[in-house]
Amino acid sequence: MPIITLDGPPIADLETRRTLVAELTRAAANAYGMPEEKIIVLIRENTPEQVAVGGQLIADLRR
Amino acid sequence: MPIITLDGPPIADLETRRTLVAELTRAAANAYGMPEEKIIVLIRENTPEQVAVGGQLIADLRR
Amino acid sequence: MPIITLDGPPIADLETRRTLVAELTRAAANAYGMPEEKIIVLIRENTPEQVAVGGQLIADLRR
Amino acid sequence: MPIITLDGPPIADLETRRTLVAELTRAAANAYGMPEEKIIVLIRENTPEQVAVGGQLIADLRR
Amino acid sequence: MPIITLDGPPIADLETRRTLVAELTRAAANAYGMPEEKIIVLIRENTPEQVAVGGQLIADLRR
Amino acid sequence: MPIITLDGPPIADLETRRTLVAELTRAAANAYGMPEEKIIVLIRENTPEQVAVGGQLIADLRR
Repeated sequence: MPIITLDGPPIADLETRRTLVAELTRAAANAYGMPEEKIIVLIRENTPEQVAVGGQLIADLRR
Repeated sequence: MPIITLDGPPIADLETRRTLVAELTRAAANAYGMPEEKIIVLIRENTPEQVAVGGQLIADLRR
Repeated sequence: MPIITLDGPPIADLETRRTLVAELTRAAANAYGMPEEKIIVLIRENTPEQVAVGGQLIADLRR
Repeated sequence: MPIITLDGPPIADLETRRTLVAELTRAAANAYGMPEEKIIVLIRENTPEQVAVGGQLIADLRR
Repeated sequence: MPIITLDGPPIADLETRRTLVAELTRAAANAYGMPEEKIIVLIRENTPEQVAVGGQLIADLRR
Repeated sequence: MPIITLDGPPIADLETRRTLVAELTRAAANAYGMPEEKIIVLIRENTPEQVAVGGQLIADLRR
């Protein structure tokens, strides 16, 4: 039961979310040679105050 | 300091939560041969829009 | 499909491993009101050089 | 900097690995509307003794 | 692209958050011998109902 | 019990590892206003075949 965990900014649009999980699942099913039913996807959504790159919060980089 | 991380749907009832963490902790303490005080549990709660199985969001599978 | 991830020291004995995953699974199935077949367990095993408590590696604390 | 973490069985073939990370990255870049350079993929590989479904180790289910 | 993930209680003060990610990033950049720009930090914030130590929820330990 | 998880390349030198966990722990203890004894660090070490940036394995980027 492979698991794909995503950490990224919030995804507002439900259709984008559907396409994303379908594509990630297809890619993993192909790589592992397993049926898509075995693949689980978890989407974690982080705010700009929760992520930093280069020692600076995304919230500050955007200003 | 073993750590148990749970990813699942929200758990509304506080008593259910208490029983869950107590049982997970006991199982891990037994397996590692450590006192229960050393075991940490993290409960992550995901919405049906954040999880997919077989390429479909749980939110869509339930419809 | 709830997922239980364990981070702890290596578990040498296969029977201990079996008991552990069975007990963790039962606890989660009860809490979520789901059949056990829906529960996934991942065991991560870390060496004493990979874990620190209080700013000191477990490898150093044991000396 | 979205991060995609995969937990699955070992992937022996390097070309399969390349295709996998390329496809996962493209899917995430599309969903987030970001250049592919911003996407990180981590592949974690677990043995059949480290994963359980339905309370049984994959190592035992295969027998 | 090393990734530092933090799991802890919520951090209300933005300045504390800035200092934290800056210090974590500097420590990792030094250890890996990489420029700070390569380091990503993710802050996860958990409520006292989501964390347990010794089999008891933090929410209960505080009472 | 805040937890700091690091994902990065292997760290060969034990002294570097000690300095790293000490500095990460101090930064977290300061931010959370907790004693250092409460902070746990997990170091995960990934090979260049397990990490990709921009859709390419680190193993390929280095060539």
